[in-house]
Amino acid sequence: MEDVVIQWQEKVSLKEPILVEGLPGVGNVGKLAADYLKDAVKARPLATIYSKYFPPQVYVNEDGTIRLVSNDLYYARGSRGRERDLLILVGDYQGLSPEGQYELTDRVLKAAQELGVKEVYTLAGFAQGHMVDAPRVLGAASSLSRVEAMKPLGVVFSRTDPGGGLLGASGLFLGLGRLYGMESVCLMGETSGYFVDPRGAEAVLKVLSQVLQRDIDLSALEGKAREIDRIAAKFREMEGKSAPEIPQAREDLGYIG
Amino acid sequence: MEDVVIQWQEKVSLKEPILVEGLPGVGNVGKLAADYLKDAVKARPLATIYSKYFPPQVYVNEDGTIRLVSNDLYYARGSRGRERDLLILVGDYQGLSPEGQYELTDRVLKAAQELGVKEVYTLAGFAQGHMVDAPRVLGAASSLSRVEAMKPLGVVFSRTDPGGGLLGASGLFLGLGRLYGMESVCLMGETSGYFVDPRGAEAVLKVLSQVLQRDIDLSALEGKAREIDRIAAKFREMEGKSAPEIPQAREDLGYIG
Amino acid sequence: MEDVVIQWQEKVSLKEPILVEGLPGVGNVGKLAADYLKDAVKARPLATIYSKYFPPQVYVNEDGTIRLVSNDLYYARGSRGRERDLLILVGDYQGLSPEGQYELTDRVLKAAQELGVKEVYTLAGFAQGHMVDAPRVLGAASSLSRVEAMKPLGVVFSRTDPGGGLLGASGLFLGLGRLYGMESVCLMGETSGYFVDPRGAEAVLKVLSQVLQRDIDLSALEGKAREIDRIAAKFREMEGKSAPEIPQAREDLGYIG
Amino acid sequence: MEDVVIQWQEKVSLKEPILVEGLPGVGNVGKLAADYLKDAVKARPLATIYSKYFPPQVYVNEDGTIRLVSNDLYYARGSRGRERDLLILVGDYQGLSPEGQYELTDRVLKAAQELGVKEVYTLAGFAQGHMVDAPRVLGAASSLSRVEAMKPLGVVFSRTDPGGGLLGASGLFLGLGRLYGMESVCLMGETSGYFVDPRGAEAVLKVLSQVLQRDIDLSALEGKAREIDRIAAKFREMEGKSAPEIPQAREDLGYIG
Repeated sequence: MEDVVIQWQEKVSLKEPILVEGLPGVGNVGKLAADYLKDAVKARPLATIYSKYFPPQVYVNEDGTIRLVSNDLYYARGSRGRERDLLILVGDYQGLSPEGQYELTDRVLKAAQELGVKEVYTLAGFAQGHMVDAPRVLGAASSLSRVEAMKPLGVVFSRTDPGGGLLGASGLFLGLGRLYGMESVCLMGETSGYFVDPRGAEAVLKVLSQVLQRDIDLSALEGKAREIDRIAAKFREMEGKSAPEIPQAREDLGYIG
Repeated sequence: MEDVVIQWQEKVSLKEPILVEGLPGVGNVGKLAADYLKDAVKARPLATIYSKYFPPQVYVNEDGTIRLVSNDLYYARGSRGRERDLLILVGDYQGLSPEGQYELTDRVLKAAQELGVKEVYTLAGFAQGHMVDAPRVLGAASSLSRVEAMKPLGVVFSRTDPGGGLLGASGLFLGLGRLYGMESVCLMGETSGYFVDPRGAEAVLKVLSQVLQRDIDLSALEGKAREIDRIAAKFREMEGKSAPEIPQAREDLGYIG
Repeated sequence: MEDVVIQWQEKVSLKEPILVEGLPGVGNVGKLAADYLKDAVKARPLATIYSKYFPPQVYVNEDGTIRLVSNDLYYARGSRGRERDLLILVGDYQGLSPEGQYELTDRVLKAAQELGVKEVYTLAGFAQGHMVDAPRVLGAASSLSRVEAMKPLGVVFSRTDPGGGLLGASGLFLGLGRLYGMESVCLMGETSGYFVDPRGAEAVLKVLSQVLQRDIDLSALEGKAREIDRIAAKFREMEGKSAPEIPQAREDLGYIG
Repeated sequence: MEDVVIQWQEKVSLKEPILVEGLPGVGNVGKLAADYLKDAVKARPLATIYSKYFPPQVYVNEDGTIRLVSNDLYYARGSRGRERDLLILVGDYQGLSPEGQYELTDRVLKAAQELGVKEVYTLAGFAQGHMVDAPRVLGAASSLSRVEAMKPLGVVFSRTDPGGGLLGASGLFLGLGRLYGMESVCLMGETSGYFVDPRGAEAVLKVLSQVLQRDIDLSALEGKAREIDRIAAKFREMEGKSAPEIPQAREDLGYIG
């Protein structure tokens, strides 16, 4: 079989589309944000991506039918004059191996290029290793002009973070995207890294809505975020009493999805 | 060499064949069931599948001759009017790596398609992590119509199990089978997951015999099952006395062959 | 680069050549025996095999020059009428991964076929996990006629050993060799599995010299064997005093080179 | 995507160029030396090498822009009559897997050959596992004539070191380089193996400057070296007091970059 199989559900012609990527990673911030965006803008399924670089796994839906693990491209038209079309990449997994990461990212970029994409935004979490009250959005970009364009939106470009660079799809879309002549930005919502974090996703989406000049109703995410705030509060309580051991969570810290 | 090598023993033309798969996995339920079915219907060898995705291993037969590890396709003609022809996949191993799993499954599906297969049944075990008295058969299917067709046969479609989905060949045949336009069902016999389980295989075959509208004499399997019942009884005794540590067996639990 | 690169030192035409393989493995029995055979019959270098399935490693010779790790084919002419030509495969490593094992073995078999090889003997160790005084030679073969031909030479075909089959090149040459229509025998010298064992190699070569109808002077090997006997004696002494812990050596036991 | 992608920044014609390689490895001696050489001779960027055999990672520069991990070729013209042109390979990583090591080295050698390279020098560290006061430079070479040419420059060719051979790019460039008909030398600066070691890099560059007949101003490296000397002094102090446990560092010892 082909290493990466793309099944197209529809043939579309897009207007200056922007690609937004959000796959599983630290705090699942990127995945939460991209999934939410996809629903909020009522994006339509465009293509399903299967690959031998994903686990050999199917999910079972509630009705008993199955679904092979995949990444999925959705698209949304710009409804008003000033809005550009959107291409959104979501999915169950990132590639399992380094080779898989490269092959999958390259294949999606190739497809995106054919659809006219010249600009990419990747969404990710940045693990701080401690509770974060008001998560900032850290940035990294393909060019200085992109860095400068992001600063007025509140994106923080730190000299020290992330020190070890970005590992995984969110970084690779920037790095390989350059070989396709694409401009790109990675938006990283700060998160503890200890649990799935809608607060970080919210922060990322607030910036992205400005970039895309689209209103995104964040109220549903706000609900999820409050729930996690309650868990976080309990967690903090525990932290106050004793040094907690969360080895599994900490293992994730080095990884920026 | 080719990644997957298929050696055909015979050239056959089959009548609406149904593919049944059963490879090693949890409690070896799928393998036990498919091997038993193969013998019960007096299936004949059709093709041997070698691959660099299997271990570099040969088995030594009792007479001193060797056999390279393989998967094997058998076929059985429908003896009466209402029976359809069968294609049965058995074997020593599943692919060792995710890539291997995908490549092997895809290659077998391709061959099956050329033989006219439009319907696939995969047999597997579902590890409960505790002793199971009367194993149920859990199901997952490629379509709602297949789900509905299975329910009257006693197959259970649970909203929660298997929560993590199906990992390995039994799931992948469903997922990739869809790309070949095949309808498919995975039948999972409940098992403790602690040892090879003919009881689970028996449960699966009872359902399958109805699906295939073939009488399958299960008495030999019943003998094996009673033996394991005796072991299980001892095990339960132990369980009653103290919390047993069966780390190796538990490792298997996440995996559905 | 090609996955497997064969550099030919010479172009030869061989008379009904027999391929003998001996690569590193349990007790290094196969490697010791094949290396010794190569020197004893004054075999000449025929081809060097490099591969990305070997480690990225060079050895440094005593004079400071380097040598990339490789497998090597040697050949020896039959000096008298009744002797057939020999092709001997020796080397630093077996393939690192299952894929590498398959690819390397297949590539050598292809080259061997082009040289006219129809018969293969692989040399290996069989780890008993305890000291062995008079090592037997266990066998496995591609066909019953080969099994029967070996029995009069003292080769033991056990119903139980090796229970888990043969893992690695020595088994794979038999299994894949069959796809090339080659007859083959694996000769396994019993060994403790705890250290490099010339005694096992000696046992294997005694059988092989009969097979090949060549006198092989084993005196030099006998010297090495006596040395190891001294070590073994000390080891046994230790064993008598306390249960020794040799975890590293035991790890090797499952592997038949 | 291609396994190895080379992006050329410039098209150059070089005069009998010598390739110098220095990638991360033991004590980062090779990388330190090659990076320093590159700056000292004011080498210019020639090509960037991306590969799926590197980690899927981007670095974030201080200004917020990113850089995909890579290896990089630089070149420097010989400024005076007796100097030959230089090609210098530096980079963030060696290939992650054995296959990656072979593919990357082979691809660079192919490019180097097209640029006219017939001579290669690889720079590496040799881990002694204890503090080294005055690091020697150990050598290994493609031919005896290269060994003899190095001895008058103070390079030590030891009968025993490195016993296990050279693992990684520095050895592979020698081994595979031979298949391209290239003469080559590996220069290994002795180092403890416990930390990044400019002292070892200095030793290597002193030899290399004689080989290249170029004056290289080592004063900046000397500064770094003194800093590490201070750390080493403290370390030795600790060593004197108790047996220190440096498991992480020791793990590196077997690896020669």
